[in-house]
Amino acid sequence: MTDPPAIGIDIGGTKVSGALVQADGTISHRIQRDTPHRTTSPSVVHDTIVGVVNDVLAVAEHYRPDGPTQRRHVSVAAIGIGAAGWVSADQSTVVFAPHLSWRNEPLGDRLSISLSLPVVVDNDANAAGWAEWRFGAGRGERHLVMITLGTGIGGALVVNGQIQRGKFGLAGEFGHMQVVSDGHRCACGNRGCWEEYASGRALIREARAIMDTRSRGAKELSALAALEPGGLSGPMVTRAAREGDRTAIELLAEMGGWLGIGLANIAAALDPGGFVIGGGVSAAGELLLGPARTSFQRCLPGRGYREEAFISAAQLGNDAGLIGAADLARAAVS
Amino acid sequence: MTDPPAIGIDIGGTKVSGALVQADGTISHRIQRDTPHRTTSPSVVHDTIVGVVNDVLAVAEHYRPDGPTQRRHVSVAAIGIGAAGWVSADQSTVVFAPHLSWRNEPLGDRLSISLSLPVVVDNDANAAGWAEWRFGAGRGERHLVMITLGTGIGGALVVNGQIQRGKFGLAGEFGHMQVVSDGHRCACGNRGCWEEYASGRALIREARAIMDTRSRGAKELSALAALEPGGLSGPMVTRAAREGDRTAIELLAEMGGWLGIGLANIAAALDPGGFVIGGGVSAAGELLLGPARTSFQRCLPGRGYREEAFISAAQLGNDAGLIGAADLARAAVS
Repeated sequence: MTDPPAIGIDIGGTKVSGALVQADGTISHRIQRDTPHRTTSPSVVHDTIVGVVNDVLAVAEHYRPDGPTQRRHVSVAAIGIGAAGWVSADQSTVVFAPHLSWRNEPLGDRLSISLSLPVVVDNDANAAGWAEWRFGAGRGERHLVMITLGTGIGGALVVNGQIQRGKFGLAGEFGHMQVVSDGHRCACGNRGCWEEYASGRALIREARAIMDTRSRGAKELSALAALEPGGLSGPMVTRAAREGDRTAIELLAEMGGWLGIGLANIAAALDPGGFVIGGGVSAAGELLLGPARTSFQRCLPGRGYREEAFISAAQLGNDAGLIGAADLARAAVS
Repeated sequence: MTDPPAIGIDIGGTKVSGALVQADGTISHRIQRDTPHRTTSPSVVHDTIVGVVNDVLAVAEHYRPDGPTQRRHVSVAAIGIGAAGWVSADQSTVVFAPHLSWRNEPLGDRLSISLSLPVVVDNDANAAGWAEWRFGAGRGERHLVMITLGTGIGGALVVNGQIQRGKFGLAGEFGHMQVVSDGHRCACGNRGCWEEYASGRALIREARAIMDTRSRGAKELSALAALEPGGLSGPMVTRAAREGDRTAIELLAEMGGWLGIGLANIAAALDPGGFVIGGGVSAAGELLLGPARTSFQRCLPGRGYREEAFISAAQLGNDAGLIGAADLARAAVS
């Protein structure tokens, strides 16, 4: 008998994605809906998640790879939710979600009643870190740190096959460690947080600052930004760098330098065996990770007298959150 | 039958201390010798430790609280060594000790042969953290961070009754996390490390900088420094602050501010239930910890939406290293 699949749900800033995830991490029957606006009530988000789960089940129940559509029963072990927010250590309550209207929202219990299935909630970076440890770039590493570089920085720590959550469930907020005194202001209310120097937001801020100079190096970026209605974006900078634009390459290298400084800080505190770098910005690949490794080796305390953690690109891309949320839910109920 | 005692050895920058430590953490029969100079060979340090252990045993064997001296046999479970250095994850080898001539020194095995007893080696901050968790200010906290403020910063992390060592045994080096970009140079080769802003060394550097200004505020500190052959010291600043000297109070408050920034960084990453602050500088008590708490609450990400870790003064003073080393050794062999 094979393990039943779980359903993974990833609640992002713009999309709520869901899919069926098998015990070996493979996914199928993906469904997406728009994320409700942050000002809508928690019940709208709740209904959106229920809708995505039911859609995934409906598609899976009507799917036959080898013949005409015919309804069959799909047994699901559990539902796993990955959310950009702070989740209580018991994986049930979203304490605080900056991009949604949740404050101490008992998401797990409410969804479990609506769906008649066990529901397990986790932070999106924890979900992604778990997926990379189970099925991706962190396989086999018993002391792993996951960094997701999106608009900000998410983090997760997997030690001996357990996500480390801290006392109150809020561990892994590496992005809000101060690396610069009196530095850039952060949405958290502090200044000089790491994520103000190594993230999509930082990349766009710096690219705009260069465009404002109207210097020679700014020309190509400005031309690119003019082509898109939304103006300059992170992926645009990455594309320009891939095509050889020097300014874009320098911007990614600069951000890689800051990435390495933060990784060295984490290595000083936690001494992991490896780092996996995911999230949208990590699509820049070696243009970012090469400079990050150089900076990491420059900043690591005791360099030359110690073994060093590896720094690898994530392997599961945008699916990491989905896969990890489902697999964490399966682990919690089995 | 009661558990046999262990012997704890604390190898400091100036003294090697040893004592008999009972299973309940009480200590007796303390012996001290000078720490060999850092340029002497590892064998001299080895002989010094053997000498201290034998002295502790000799004193214990001749001690009778209720009558004339008479030799008796003292059964010892193990020897625990706390050393200011990086110790391998298997608690046997000192990888690197900045203040001694050890480089990959198999201290545990060598001492075990010389002493015919199990020998367990650990980092001095780990030893102190363990002692405070078992018998001191961290009792009952299942997710504890220990910070020792001496010349630099030592750190330890105790989670669910286990010291967290990381992959290679070097976790807890919180003092070398960058908090200032292009900041003060550190002995580790980097700049802006936390311990360059919150430590005995930082306190003396800032006090000297004030004395150099020859300002009104510098007068009292300069007068104090003139009285001692060694010049200004950390304990001197603390004493001046206790006696109401405004400049000394401000210096300790400034350092407390930096202490709080670093604790907030650790809380972002690890989310512990509490911090215990020990080491020589912590003798300043609330003059340091009050400002540290204010700064911690100001810098903690998500303040107002989360439970907060406590920040407490260590309770075991200079004995923490001894007690913890002995108790860790007992735990390792039992």
